[in-house]
Amino acid sequence: MTRTIVASATREIVIGFDQPFCVIGERINPTGRKKLAAEMMEGNFETVIKDALEQVAAGATMLDVNAGVTSVNPNETEPGLLVKTMEIVQGLVDVPLSIDSSVTAAIEAALKVAKGRPLINSVTGEEEKLEAILPLCAKYNVPVVAISNDETGISQDPDVRFAVAKKIVERAADYGIKPHDIVVDPLVMPIGAVGSAGLQVFALVRRLREELKVNTTCGLSNISFGLPHRHGINAGFIPMVIGAGMTSAIMNPCRPQEMEAVRAANVLNGTDENCYNWIKTYRDYKPAEGGAAAPAPAAASAGGGRRGGRAARVGAGGASE
Amino acid sequence: MTRTIVASATREIVIGFDQPFCVIGERINPTGRKKLAAEMMEGNFETVIKDALEQVAAGATMLDVNAGVTSVNPNETEPGLLVKTMEIVQGLVDVPLSIDSSVTAAIEAALKVAKGRPLINSVTGEEEKLEAILPLCAKYNVPVVAISNDETGISQDPDVRFAVAKKIVERAADYGIKPHDIVVDPLVMPIGAVGSAGLQVFALVRRLREELKVNTTCGLSNISFGLPHRHGINAGFIPMVIGAGMTSAIMNPCRPQEMEAVRAANVLNGTDENCYNWIKTYRDYKPAEGGAAAPAPAAASAGGGRRGGRAARVGAGGASE
Repeated sequence: MTRTIVASATREIVIGFDQPFCVIGERINPTGRKKLAAEMMEGNFETVIKDALEQVAAGATMLDVNAGVTSVNPNETEPGLLVKTMEIVQGLVDVPLSIDSSVTAAIEAALKVAKGRPLINSVTGEEEKLEAILPLCAKYNVPVVAISNDETGISQDPDVRFAVAKKIVERAADYGIKPHDIVVDPLVMPIGAVGSAGLQVFALVRRLREELKVNTTCGLSNISFGLPHRHGINAGFIPMVIGAGMTSAIMNPCRPQEMEAVRAANVLNGTDENCYNWIKTYRDYKPAEGGAAAPAPAAASAGGGRRGGRAARVGAGGASE
Repeated sequence: MTRTIVASATREIVIGFDQPFCVIGERINPTGRKKLAAEMMEGNFETVIKDALEQVAAGATMLDVNAGVTSVNPNETEPGLLVKTMEIVQGLVDVPLSIDSSVTAAIEAALKVAKGRPLINSVTGEEEKLEAILPLCAKYNVPVVAISNDETGISQDPDVRFAVAKKIVERAADYGIKPHDIVVDPLVMPIGAVGSAGLQVFALVRRLREELKVNTTCGLSNISFGLPHRHGINAGFIPMVIGAGMTSAIMNPCRPQEMEAVRAANVLNGTDENCYNWIKTYRDYKPAEGGAAAPAPAAASAGGGRRGGRAARVGAGGASE
């Protein structure tokens, strides 16, 4: 059974087919968030702190940490800023972290200060990336997200994306990195532009699981890009892609509709034992008028109850297991 | 490709793997609804009429019609009452109907007055049922729901439930009934009682599709029996079971959260071409406070836009395509 182990200083999480879906909180990322970028450049981490606490309280299993505030001179600014951000976040919450950067020096700097066993986000099939990132995975013995594109870009052909993933797994093996330490992102296309995007990714995830024996992840909200009521599409996509075998996603855990879909899928997939987490989260649930979904309790966890659930250090009401 | 064709006097619907999910409205059923049973016994069809119009306006693809008002003397009362109910419903809406009765004489009486090509609900693997119902399917050339239980009851073993379904398909063949006219209900257990109920049914649906080449259905809400916030579990179950290959369900189309899950799954499964129905339904969608789902427009359709969608005769605002 494929088990990707990630850890903070105090908590170990397993990503795997028989585990609750791993929700990687995406919020700590200044890409497209000008205000956050400006704050971080000024050394103001108020929003980072708020986002860390809120995401863990909402049920994030892990947090992604990105400090890409500028494209002007990232090699100079990003390593220091990513280290600072990592230190703040891991001093605040006890979920494992994902080190998210396109700057190799920033990734290595973050690896040096990371506690536990972080996830590197990411390597691609590009030669330059493979040669830069895989040695770091080996040196620090950490897992990595492998994105299925290469020098030729993102292929529209899912067979090509599978082949890129296979190449990365094989190249990783040359460095002694096992398939269980590769978490493949098969790349999700927007369903509004590519009508077969759903069927493509479901088939790809099944192949990645069965043939390459790897865990998988995706940037969840890509699927609904350009459509109205994106959260409804996202919430439908989560159970379908979990049913196909996907084991994690980089997503916003502060969206109640999406997190409800994760919790329901865990119940249905047999990874929420005795429906413990579902019952704990929704036992006093009052539906909104008209029979639609209402927000879940703010501090509800998405899963992993038997592994400790969420950060005990977060002071939100009901956050203790 | 397996295609189960059902029809009203004026509209044909295809149930199939490449079709929008077929929502069979469950409301016209006095079982467990004392007030409705009392009304129907008195010849009062006000609730039946309301339920028929509301379900079609909410996006039902078909309507199930059950007139089992009493267990005292059903052979005497049910045929006449079912005929009367069928006539009222098919005079009011133009979706195909499912004739739902455990009384053979009632099914045959309803078949005699049914317009188009109704679905019989249901036969089981019990000898007595097979011998009573299959000849009616052959005589009237109509499809049938086949429930995977027999004289020994409902097996907890999914392999036994598969074997019962296989037996029904084989017995049907003896009457000249093709697999595409058998819609198997593999029987969904409550996930709160049987933790593997989800994984069981997903595997069963895949086998039924691949090995027996049949369409499938289920009583949807069984899955969430006994749990809090059942609509959340139902809404997560729909995309997962559609992803596994289920092509219809007997459910309440007046629940916005469940219907949203059906619509999203149709988009993701590639059966809502160009996301037409999704965009039409949610283009002006305003999320509820807190980011949870709000009710969809009352007259929104679940799918089948390219087949006419919903009853043109229903006078609800926005009901015309």
